[in-house]
Order: sequence, then structure tokens, then C-alpha cells
Amino acid sequence: MLNFVLMGAGRIGKMHAQNIFLHPNCNLSFVYDVNQESATDLANKYNSKVASSAEEAISSKETDVVFIASATPTHINFITKAAQSGKAIFCEKPSEFDIEKVNQCLKEVKNYDVPIQIGFNRRFDNSHRKVKLAKENGEIGELEMVIISSRDPEPPGLDYLKVAGGFFRDTTIHDFDLSRFILGEDQIVEVTAYGSQLISQECKDLGDHDTAMFIMKSQKGVLIHINNSRRAVYGYDQRVEVFGSKGMMISNNQSVTSVEKFDDKSTYAKDPIHFFFIERYDQAYKDQLDAFVKIVINKEKPSVTFEDGRNALILANAAYESFETGKSVRVDYK
Amino acid sequence: MLNFVLMGAGRIGKMHAQNIFLHPNCNLSFVYDVNQESATDLANKYNSKVASSAEEAISSKETDVVFIASATPTHINFITKAAQSGKAIFCEKPSEFDIEKVNQCLKEVKNYDVPIQIGFNRRFDNSHRKVKLAKENGEIGELEMVIISSRDPEPPGLDYLKVAGGFFRDTTIHDFDLSRFILGEDQIVEVTAYGSQLISQECKDLGDHDTAMFIMKSQKGVLIHINNSRRAVYGYDQRVEVFGSKGMMISNNQSVTSVEKFDDKSTYAKDPIHFFFIERYDQAYKDQLDAFVKIVINKEKPSVTFEDGRNALILANAAYESFETGKSVRVDYK
Amino acid sequence: MLNFVLMGAGRIGKMHAQNIFLHPNCNLSFVYDVNQESATDLANKYNSKVASSAEEAISSKETDVVFIASATPTHINFITKAAQSGKAIFCEKPSEFDIEKVNQCLKEVKNYDVPIQIGFNRRFDNSHRKVKLAKENGEIGELEMVIISSRDPEPPGLDYLKVAGGFFRDTTIHDFDLSRFILGEDQIVEVTAYGSQLISQECKDLGDHDTAMFIMKSQKGVLIHINNSRRAVYGYDQRVEVFGSKGMMISNNQSVTSVEKFDDKSTYAKDPIHFFFIERYDQAYKDQLDAFVKIVINKEKPSVTFEDGRNALILANAAYESFETGKSVRVDYK
Amino acid sequence: MLNFVLMGAGRIGKMHAQNIFLHPNCNLSFVYDVNQESATDLANKYNSKVASSAEEAISSKETDVVFIASATPTHINFITKAAQSGKAIFCEKPSEFDIEKVNQCLKEVKNYDVPIQIGFNRRFDNSHRKVKLAKENGEIGELEMVIISSRDPEPPGLDYLKVAGGFFRDTTIHDFDLSRFILGEDQIVEVTAYGSQLISQECKDLGDHDTAMFIMKSQKGVLIHINNSRRAVYGYDQRVEVFGSKGMMISNNQSVTSVEKFDDKSTYAKDPIHFFFIERYDQAYKDQLDAFVKIVINKEKPSVTFEDGRNALILANAAYESFETGKSVRVDYK
Repeated sequence: MLNFVLMGAGRIGKMHAQNIFLHPNCNLSFVYDVNQESATDLANKYNSKVASSAEEAISSKETDVVFIASATPTHINFITKAAQSGKAIFCEKPSEFDIEKVNQCLKEVKNYDVPIQIGFNRRFDNSHRKVKLAKENGEIGELEMVIISSRDPEPPGLDYLKVAGGFFRDTTIHDFDLSRFILGEDQIVEVTAYGSQLISQECKDLGDHDTAMFIMKSQKGVLIHINNSRRAVYGYDQRVEVFGSKGMMISNNQSVTSVEKFDDKSTYAKDPIHFFFIERYDQAYKDQLDAFVKIVINKEKPSVTFEDGRNALILANAAYESFETGKSVRVDYK
Repeated sequence: MLNFVLMGAGRIGKMHAQNIFLHPNCNLSFVYDVNQESATDLANKYNSKVASSAEEAISSKETDVVFIASATPTHINFITKAAQSGKAIFCEKPSEFDIEKVNQCLKEVKNYDVPIQIGFNRRFDNSHRKVKLAKENGEIGELEMVIISSRDPEPPGLDYLKVAGGFFRDTTIHDFDLSRFILGEDQIVEVTAYGSQLISQECKDLGDHDTAMFIMKSQKGVLIHINNSRRAVYGYDQRVEVFGSKGMMISNNQSVTSVEKFDDKSTYAKDPIHFFFIERYDQAYKDQLDAFVKIVINKEKPSVTFEDGRNALILANAAYESFETGKSVRVDYK
Repeated sequence: MLNFVLMGAGRIGKMHAQNIFLHPNCNLSFVYDVNQESATDLANKYNSKVASSAEEAISSKETDVVFIASATPTHINFITKAAQSGKAIFCEKPSEFDIEKVNQCLKEVKNYDVPIQIGFNRRFDNSHRKVKLAKENGEIGELEMVIISSRDPEPPGLDYLKVAGGFFRDTTIHDFDLSRFILGEDQIVEVTAYGSQLISQECKDLGDHDTAMFIMKSQKGVLIHINNSRRAVYGYDQRVEVFGSKGMMISNNQSVTSVEKFDDKSTYAKDPIHFFFIERYDQAYKDQLDAFVKIVINKEKPSVTFEDGRNALILANAAYESFETGKSVRVDYK
Repeated sequence: MLNFVLMGAGRIGKMHAQNIFLHPNCNLSFVYDVNQESATDLANKYNSKVASSAEEAISSKETDVVFIASATPTHINFITKAAQSGKAIFCEKPSEFDIEKVNQCLKEVKNYDVPIQIGFNRRFDNSHRKVKLAKENGEIGELEMVIISSRDPEPPGLDYLKVAGGFFRDTTIHDFDLSRFILGEDQIVEVTAYGSQLISQECKDLGDHDTAMFIMKSQKGVLIHINNSRRAVYGYDQRVEVFGSKGMMISNNQSVTSVEKFDDKSTYAKDPIHFFFIERYDQAYKDQLDAFVKIVINKEKPSVTFEDGRNALILANAAYESFETGKSVRVDYK
């Protein structure tokens, strides 16, 4: 039984708490949140203790795993402390917006032999995995193009936007990682980014984007397109298309039911797709936790590493450079 | 170039006239209709002559083909005369409602070596054919079940209903024939019919049905289900499903466009399907004519014979017997 | 917290055990099975006790709920005992094959005011529910036809077949209940059944069917079709179609992923659908338990009653009468 | 009746010849091709004359329309001559690769008041039109993104590649035009292009691309993505997606049949989509001709003008500039 400290009792923290609680090998021992009330509510729900301080919970002898689902600016600090305490670490994406801090942290944690897994949950979605596998096992032949459509159902509030690090680092970072996941060994070497302000006045006020498109190119010449929006009224649009010399595979959207309606206006009409990530990636979040638990128990290496988090951030930063200069940017992973 | 006499200038006659006109091996030489005005309009449109009498047109030396698309009660008479004149014959389904008359006519026309093709257009639909082929070539393994959903977009008017011979003989007859087409050598031996009056007051007044379901069984034990309605508000619903030991194949409905709509109410919504048979079976009607022209020119046997028309009528009659007696009826093809 | 006794530790018992274990208001206190080893294994997995006898577990003061997932012949006995002990009862379908025993039991349990819910799990499937709701709320207008396709992925073994009560009572019973669920107040009054032996030599040897079709008619004239097979190689085929004056709604099949494949042979190809009921109705089984727990806690009436189980059995019996007599059978619910 | 001169008796010329022949208001009076044999074959098939020279046919008094479907380098010359002869002109895309020649021609033809329509056939496809209309009538709200996937089934031969003007000018030009068609008044102002050589050795040898991606931005900030490939093994992939504040509409691919196959490997599998443009855009080519005939007869302005051809070429040229400089290029329409 692994004892978990959960950092963060917000929306995503709540979901993780439930998954930890239900997992046969996990015990939620501590919940920490700057908002004591949120921490208390969540701890009570799952028979956990409220941590009076992050440090106390992290360093507790009882603790096996530090599970970080707090605000992004706290991530690096918690990762470092957890590593120093010799705990296994799971950290929600993005690990941090400042590449310098990431580099420093990376250097520091290398001194401690602890597993660190980054929360790129989409890698664990059964449908996206199947598409990745089709590339791996040659089912679609040589990979030539990847097209990712990734759109949120509605823009976040101003408070979130202010600290979210910008559209490319907060949202597209998932798609950068998914692109890397699909490409495998073949590295992305070039990025072009376009951004627009078409939806949210608050985004505009902050100088942030709500609509964006990207093209990337890999070492082998594979072309990757990503498009993002902060508002798809039909739900959380999540599609991944891989195209190669032997065919194409699409991980398409998922409706809540399998009902199709026919009337005098339309036919084969399905329900709106899942509203947002918690519903859409339910299976992925559970399998992500399960994979993490297995690597901790079996002392293996995580499949999604801190370096993966760093590389996705590097792509986001290159995208910003492209947007600002109007140029295609060569990606420097050093 | 084959010279055609078209009997009947109504809705379906008009469609056939156009197809005959556009076919490279056909010439529409005469149009006949009891309504002289209709005949004249159609003849003018395609540079044909108006036949002053059916007899004149049929017996004209110039005439190669008598194409019968007039009201059902006229069919047997026109078939007989055309056969006596040695002309090739195409006759719209159903050939006649009275099995005695059909038997007599069959006896008579056997004296004349002329090709007679019955207008079971659905046999020529590319999708239905593919399903039939899948059964033939073993792609679905041994056939076990057939399910046909066949629904009109709206009930016909009272005038039509009065002379249409009843729902099973006018509408289901297509599905009886399609079932026979799919089964091939394996004969239908048993029929059960259910009818309901749920939609049309006019149907009810005439003692006719507007909703019906059937089960049939073949010699080999294959079970066949047909369901019919006189009103599907989403369009002309035409689905054929074959199920066997190796899988299933469905000939599904067809939208006018390939557009899919996503909004806050529904997703993947397509347009209504084709309104009715003229739109839905456009390709089938053209290929049906083409197949007929080929067998006439090459002096071959039609793939859809007068006997096929008779057998479908026998099934319809058995269905009425089942409905009236509340019993499963053994089919007697003699 | 409700204390459950689980009767039966077979395939479906195992699934129920897990759901009971995970439900926040449930405690699995006893497991009983004639096979002591199975009972012990399951009890160990979920920290339950093994009941040395059914009676002991049922009558234990601790016990709140008797959950019956044992072989069908044991159901009536367990139901009766549980009722006499004043316990809430959940019983897997079918409750019993012999209508006399059902009637007797019904009479007996009426003396005890305990809730009895029958395990017609499909009523709790989100997609089927949506179709039922569309009928209820008028979204499809006046109901005119219902079409249920319900096919197992593979035939059961001989041991199961011998005690399963026949295809109509074991398998179609779900579809009879689903038909009743959709129809609501409107009662089924007439049944016709066709059966065939096309797949399984073991079925044939036992005189059982592996392929079947049904038509039923309701008081209001609604026509219902059911088709069943013991083997659909593409998975557990579960489709429900309701058709009415304003349109149609189909609860279609569900693939494990939302992946679509395109190659030189086919396009838009999805994965096989769920293998069987445990995967396909995962959500339904969980919601069924949850609904049952709520009615027990709130002392309400179950939405799926013992009478529902009896009525489905009456339809199955009428179907057998139709098959044997070759007639449409009037249903007698008395 | 309009008398047509058809310039070019190649693959696309043959298709146009048939459409002209079948159109009730058109007469194919002359066929011209540098390859006399091709011209003769086609002329014989449709009872036309073979033009001994392009000039003779164009300037003939009899000629109403010059329909140009010959090799691209001949287009400007034929347009100019036809304009000077006062004939109505239909010209296949692209009108010419050299923008200087296009500009000069544009200047010249302005002296003659003749209608010139460019063959951007996709504008006339019913599904693409519906998507355009959804943007026009506000059905998808404010337009925010357009995504066009446009892939050929197989690369052309070396001979064609040598004179085709490059991937962006030969193939993407359709997608540039389609983007402009959808945007309407809102002008494309910025272009980024990526190209890859992944498929065809012949393309590589010629320095041409076989895989390409584009992002464009409009005046209003709408983002447009195009992806192209010279080889989709599943057929001619033609998808257009428009995304806006009220939803999304996709013009999806079209199979030859509506058949869906289910076996132990896959479910809902459709046939390969249409092989190539002649099959896929059959309806569009016919309606394109019909629209042209109407504007000629009614002396109206074409909906697809010579300027549209020029603007698409300008976008292709900007794309090449982007590819060569690695920069986002501002489009200059002057």
C-alpha cells in the first residue's frame, strides 16, 4: 500500500483524490492546499489527514508518494523537496513555465534517485494510445503527417488566465507532448505558430490567445499540425489523426451515449461530446495513476518523465518565439 | 438503337423517360397515357410521338421495347399484347395483384420468346448489391438472418391507395423480392405478417395498413424480418442487414451531402436522407435500364423475371393470409 | 451502510461483488456459493466472510440486503427466505422458469413488506434509457415501432445450456423486458416467435434454438420486433430502435475506443464492439446497484419489480406457445 | 443552344466533353488537341468536328464558348484569343503559373466584354457549398478556423510533374481557392508553408514536394490550415471543416456505397472513398458547367472569375516564398 500526499484540492486535485482512494494499492494519507477549507473537505471525504504544511506532509516518514496537483508556480518547489525527501513524485503538467527553473530543478533532482512522472494524461487514453501503437507497429506504414485538433469547451476565468502561463504553455503543451509521444524517436526540429484573439475579451486584455494553429517538422520530415481553441460549443474536442504510407488512423471524439437521432431536420445526430477533460479522460487518468503505481512498486522508470515535461515546454517556448518573430524556429533542446 | 414505347407518363414514367432519353442505345419513340395531356407534355420534352392508342404503339414495326410504367391494372394486358407483337418488355412492379391473372398471362407469354423484366429496381442499387454479393461470395459466412427496414417518407393520397392493392402488395412487395434476391437459391417457405393502422386515417378508412412487420423463414432455416411504415419524417428509410457466421453487412441510408454538423445540441448530425425513391434509387434505376438494354441487345435472359414478380406476389398473398388467420403460413409457389 | 449477502460467486457474482465493494453505501459482509472455494476466493478479495449456509447468511441480524446471483433454480427459494427474514432483495433475472412457482412465491412475499428488485440491467444503460426517455417525453412523437437486435458473441457451453431454461427464457427475456420498459403503460398483447438451429450443435442436440425472431403487438397497435443470435463474431450486438410520428432514435453499439481506420481495403473502420455484457453494461450494472441502494435507504419502491420479472417470463412462455403452434398468441398476464 | 469548342482531349477533357454533350443547352461543335488522334476519337464519340487548328475553332462564327481543358502553358494564349474573338470562356485551373503573364492577360481581356470562368470545381460540390453557406448564414456563428485536408490517391507521373508548376501551384491552388471561397469578403493576408519529400522519388528528383502543410491568417484573424499529400492509399481524401462561435461543420468524405461491414476484426467499416476527382466531383463538374451555361445565356458575371484564379496563384507564390525564406509572408494582391 502506497501512502499518498496530495498537493492541491482544486478541481483536478479532487478527481485525483478519488482515483487514489479507489486504487487498491493506494492510500490517501495527506491532503494539502493553501486553502485550508478545500483541503479539509477533501480529506474528510476520503478519510485522510489535512497537512498543516506542505513540508510536514512531504517529509513524513509515512509518505511514499508526493502527488502534485497544485498551482503551477508551486510545482518546482514541491518536486525539489519531495526528491530531497526521497519520495516518488507525480506532477501535473506543466511542471513550470520558466525553462531556467526547470533546468535547475532537473540538475538538482538528478542527485536523488526518485521516479518523477509528469501528468500528460492523454498518453494514457485508449484511443490515442491505439493511434500511437498503429504508428509503432507499422499499421499505417511510414508516418507522414499528424493532425491534432484540441479545443476546450469554454475559456477559463480571468484568475486562471493570469497565472496560466499563456495559451501555448498551458493548453498546447498537451498537444506538443502528444506529438512527441506519437513521433517516438523522431525528434521535432522546427516550429511555426499562429495565434488569434477572436473569442475572449479577457484573453485579449491579457495579451493572450484564444485561437491558435501550429506546424512542426520532424527530423525525418514528418509534418505535424495542431489547432487549438478556447471555445468549442459542442464540447471538449479532442481528435488525433496519423497519416502514413499505408493509411490513416483517427482517434475521434466520444459522445456520452451511443444514441443517434433522426428527425425532419437531421439524421444520425449524436449527443454533444464530453464536456471537458475530467469526463473525457476519465479512463486515461485512472490508467495513468495505475501505470505510475506500478513503476513505483516495481522500481521502474516512468514512461512520461520530467524531461518530457521539459521538452514540451521547450516546444511551447519555440512556438512563442515563432509567433513573435514571424519565423519558423529551429528547436534547441539543450 | 432500341426504339421504346413508354406506357404511362406519371411520376415514375417521367423518370424512366429521362433515363431512356439519356441512354446511348435507346430512343424514346412513343409515349402513351390515358391522360393525353400528360403524354403530350412528356413526348414533347423528349422529341417523341404521342401514341393515339396503346395498341398502335405496341404493334408498330418501329417499336423494339414496350416499357410499362402505367397503373398496375393495365400491366397484364400490355404485357400480353407486347408479347404477342414480339416486343421486349419491361414492366414496373407489381405486375398485377390477382395471382390468377398472373398465372394466365405467364402461360400465354410462354408462347412468345420475348424477354420480360420486372422493375424491382432495388436489386440494382450498388449498396444492396454489395450486401447480396457478400452473401454470395461467403464474406459474411453462412447466412443466418436478414433484416430489412423499408419506410416511405409520407403516405400516398386516397386515389392511389384505392387502386394500390394494399400495403403488402404495393410496398412490401419490394422487400419480399429483395429478400428473395439475397437468399438466392434458398427458398422462403413460411411467412407471418402483422399490420397496424397508426398513421393515416385514409388507410384506416380503406381497411389498409400503414405500419407492418413480417417474419419469414427459408428452407435452410434463415430468418428474415421486414418492417414497413408509410411515414418516416426523416426521409425514405431503406436499410438492409445481412448477418451470418462470419459477420454482418448493412446497406445503410444515404444523405444528400456528406456534411456533419456540431453545435451545442448535437454532434455528427447529417442532413435528412433522400426524400423518396426517385432520388434514393437514381443510380439503381439507371443501371436497371442499362442491364435491360444489354439483355435485349445480346438476346440474354433478364436477371429479374416475370416469375420473380409472381413469386413476390405469392409472398404478399401469403402475408395477407397470415394476417387474417393469425397463423404462420406455408408458402405455396405452385 | 448496508450489509450485503451475495448469493453466487460465479462470473456475474464476481462483478456484482466488486460493484458492491466499491459503492460508498455498501458493505459486502457475506459471500455464499455451493462451491465453497469460489465463495472463499471472492470473500477474501473483498474482506468478506464466507457463509457456511445460505440460511445463516440470509437470516443474520447484520444482513440488510440479500443479493441473489446464483443459479436460476435457487432464486425462488432465496427470495422467499430473504422476504421471510425481512431483508431487501435484489435478484438476477430470470427469477425462475416455472410460472407456477413464480406465482406462488409472489403470493408468499406479499405478506412481507420488503423491496424486491429484478436484475434487468439494460434498463439502466444510459443509451437505452435515453431512447426510453425520447418515447416518454414525446421527442419521437407517438411510438409506432420498436426494433431490438440482441446477439451474444458466442454460444454458452453445454452445462449452462442444460439449465438455462431455453433461448427465449434465458436470453430473449431481457428483450421482452426492454420492450415492456420502452412501452411503459401500453401493454403487449400478442406474440409470434420463430426459432432456428443454425449455429450450435449443442443447442440442436438439446432441442434449443440459437437464432430467433419475434413480433409483438401492443394494446395501442405498436409493433415490436426482436431478433436474437447466440453468435455475432463482431461482439455483443445490442441495438434498440424506437420509431414514431416525429422521428427515430437508435441506441447503437459501442466500441471500446473511438478509433477509425482507413486503408486500401476499408475506411472509417472501428474496433470490434464490447465483447459481452460485463464490458458493455458496466455503467448499467453500477447504476442499477446505485438505484437499488437508494430505494432501500429511502424505503421506496423499486423501478424494476418482481412483477416485471413475472411479466417477462409470461411473454417468453407465450413465445414458446407461438413457436410450437405456429400461431400468434394472445398474452394472458393473469 | 451554345456551341462549344473544347480545347484538350485528355482525361479531364473527356469528362468535360461528356458533360457538355449531355447538357440540354450545349452542343459540342469542335474538339481540338495537339494530339490529333485523341481529338478525333473524342470528336467521333460525340458527333463533333475535329478542329484543324485552335485558331480556326476559336474564331469560327459558329462558336459561342471556348472551353479550355488543355495543358496549363496553353491557357493564357487560348484565353486571349477567345476574348479577342468575343467568345465566352471557361478555363481549367490553374490559368497559368507565371503571375506576370496572368497580369498581362488580365489587362488585355479587360478590353473585351466576355465572361471568363475558372474551373475551381470544388466550389460547386454540394457538401463544400453547404459548409460555405453555414458560414454565410451564421449557422456556425463567427468563423474562427478553417481546416482543409486534401490528399490525392497517388502521385502523378514524371511527365505531368515536370510541367505541373509545383505542388503548391498545381494541387494546393484548389485549397487556396476553397479557403478564399469560404472566407468570402474577409481577405487572406498571411501565409506560412511547409513542404516535405516523403513519398515520391520523382518528386524529390525534381525538387518538388509530395507532402505539405500551410497556415494562413485572414484580415479578421481567422486561421486556416491546409494539409496536402500526393498519396492517400484509402482514396481521394477531401475534407473541409469550418469552426465558429456557434459550432462546427465538416464536409466529410464520400464512399461509393453506404455499406458498413462488421467482422471479428473491425466494425462499421465502409468502402474506400472515391478514387479521384472525376468520381468524387462528378456532381460538382456538372453543376459547374450548368452555372457557366446560365451566366453565358443570361449575360451575367461568373461566380468564379479570372481574378479568383489570379488570387489563388498569388497565394501559391506567397507559399513558395514562405517555404524558401522560413518566414510568414504577407500577401500582396496588387
